[in-house]
Amino acid sequence: MINPLFTFQIEAVQNRARAGSFVTPHGVLETPSFAPVGTQATVKSLTPEQLSDLNASLILANTYHLHLRPGDKLIKEMGGLHKFMHWSGPILTDSGGFQVFSLAKKRVIDQDGVTFRSHIDGSKHRLDPEKSIAIQENLGGDIIMAFDECSDPYDMQYSREAMTRTHQWAERCQRAKTRSDQALFGIVQGGIQEDLRQESAQVISNLDFPGIAIGGLSVGETKPEMYRILEVLDQALPGEKPRYLMGVGTPEDIINGVRRGVDIFDCVLPTRLARHNAAMTRFGGRMNIVNAQYAQEEQPIDPQCECYTCQNFSLAYLRHLVISKEMLAATLLSIHNLHTLIDLVNQIRNSIIAGEFEDFFQQFDQKYAENKPAGRMQI
Amino acid sequence: MINPLFTFQIEAVQNRARAGSFVTPHGVLETPSFAPVGTQATVKSLTPEQLSDLNASLILANTYHLHLRPGDKLIKEMGGLHKFMHWSGPILTDSGGFQVFSLAKKRVIDQDGVTFRSHIDGSKHRLDPEKSIAIQENLGGDIIMAFDECSDPYDMQYSREAMTRTHQWAERCQRAKTRSDQALFGIVQGGIQEDLRQESAQVISNLDFPGIAIGGLSVGETKPEMYRILEVLDQALPGEKPRYLMGVGTPEDIINGVRRGVDIFDCVLPTRLARHNAAMTRFGGRMNIVNAQYAQEEQPIDPQCECYTCQNFSLAYLRHLVISKEMLAATLLSIHNLHTLIDLVNQIRNSIIAGEFEDFFQQFDQKYAENKPAGRMQI
Repeated sequence: MINPLFTFQIEAVQNRARAGSFVTPHGVLETPSFAPVGTQATVKSLTPEQLSDLNASLILANTYHLHLRPGDKLIKEMGGLHKFMHWSGPILTDSGGFQVFSLAKKRVIDQDGVTFRSHIDGSKHRLDPEKSIAIQENLGGDIIMAFDECSDPYDMQYSREAMTRTHQWAERCQRAKTRSDQALFGIVQGGIQEDLRQESAQVISNLDFPGIAIGGLSVGETKPEMYRILEVLDQALPGEKPRYLMGVGTPEDIINGVRRGVDIFDCVLPTRLARHNAAMTRFGGRMNIVNAQYAQEEQPIDPQCECYTCQNFSLAYLRHLVISKEMLAATLLSIHNLHTLIDLVNQIRNSIIAGEFEDFFQQFDQKYAENKPAGRMQI
Repeated sequence: MINPLFTFQIEAVQNRARAGSFVTPHGVLETPSFAPVGTQATVKSLTPEQLSDLNASLILANTYHLHLRPGDKLIKEMGGLHKFMHWSGPILTDSGGFQVFSLAKKRVIDQDGVTFRSHIDGSKHRLDPEKSIAIQENLGGDIIMAFDECSDPYDMQYSREAMTRTHQWAERCQRAKTRSDQALFGIVQGGIQEDLRQESAQVISNLDFPGIAIGGLSVGETKPEMYRILEVLDQALPGEKPRYLMGVGTPEDIINGVRRGVDIFDCVLPTRLARHNAAMTRFGGRMNIVNAQYAQEEQPIDPQCECYTCQNFSLAYLRHLVISKEMLAATLLSIHNLHTLIDLVNQIRNSIIAGEFEDFFQQFDQKYAENKPAGRMQI
């Protein structure tokens, strides 16, 4: 079931880390890749041109949000998501599942799908595998996701049930799909239980999706648990397909993910931290821009950083913008934070191609450990 | 008292309208010119590069706001306003007077200056001519303004008193000034009384400032009253100096101002309207982007507009951003609104140089009249 519109070529491998190219109808995704999140068809506070300047290659948009507002049918009538949001590069849409399950008391799950109430106006809606695919076909992203169920990682019984439903739904998504210019990725679930993850990897691999996503991680488990599951999956998944670790995006998780065979990442973290006045640093640290120590600081966030913000603005200015509640603060911090992660995956990629990834990782890991007590902010 | 750093050359005249060039240490200001307002050292929601792309030439920043936060001394230590906000073009700072007098119950005026309480923390401050100049010298704008007092235009007695103080303060500002790389503009006051305006024009002209500002208009008087005062001043002011009409920036007021000899304008209107979800149209109309009629509109705000927003985004998308409370809405609408006014002054300038300004005005005026009932929004 090879679709010539979507091919994945692995260009270099070092231990488990891979550098590759995933071809999509809207451009080639060089991996490892980090995707900024544009929940409502906009990466918050940035124009598409500012994203291009950041060398963003893949953008994620959220099916749940866009289905409710402005509506996937409207977006289809407007020529699809690329035209609607003026982004000509690759787009990935999620299935809506994760958002719906996060609604907690506002949703009821059955074997067939989920009934939920909108967070906007309380209106009643239904999402199931067929509906999720229909919505994602209307949106028109390049990569679309199977409708899955993410469980509490520490609830073994629920993890099994959710995994089983995820497998049934994956098949239904595959049958429901009609567009050949979209790549449907299957999703592996199974919480933090190795046997479930192995089973899920087997089932999803057998369905022969053009790419495989790893769901249900970074949802409350510890970092060692997450890394152990990634190692299990690295062994259990087919090597020739791109692997996407959903919702993960701290520098340390990205580099540790690549080291365990992951190719694609996405996370709201860089733009969300920016709106909470925090700058990400290269080795996992965070700076609270409001801190009085920056009031008279002529230096930028990071004198070695090559982003637009660090090239042109002092910490004193950024702090002034934040304290004055100026919108430009979120824009400039989003640019810096996204650059930090996009630059990291690019450096990782280059180090894999150069056969130096393990050295790169060891250096990162040492700086990360040194940096750790220096004030990691929680958002 | 000619300063070679600041020269004004009139390149073309048609009736009372003038096209000129005002040289500043940070570049040439081609007039007529419209200055976007960057109250807190940022034109809200835009990067300096986005302003450059709009061909903005002059930016206004507010002395009152920057003195209180982050402090003019800090900005001086950071290398001045140009470096602080990363804007290499000309900057104009106001005197702080207008903002302080707007504080109403929070300020007390005496012959010497004004005592007021900060809108931020209630702390007590004092502003007088010498202090205003010292602050503006710390900020380091190219054009700085004399400390003046704006009166209620319908209070004749108060208008005379405020004008008299303004004249005394203008002389004190001139004496207080120490930097030769800044041009100090005097300000004419006098409300809507022709005799006061004539007297004020005479006094301020005699002080031989390199440029003259017209204060106290667009503060509650009618448009015919404003235009009549502009005609009086056009006769009373020296022809060879640039004239700046403070705080005025609707399309109709700009074109009517140029027709009465004004060269420079500034206004918060385009960016403020943008944050209130309104797009300006070329002939004085305003579109409320939230209107349901735009929900499925594939066209941009104005298909003939050449701004970045109109070239790339549909009304349906802009409405989606506004309704979803996305920050990008303010950015895209600010770009369109500022483009509308900057493009207007450029067209006016070209028409004056081509000897076609009167035709241009008549066409504008007709469209303005037709457009008027169509829904001018009040902000």
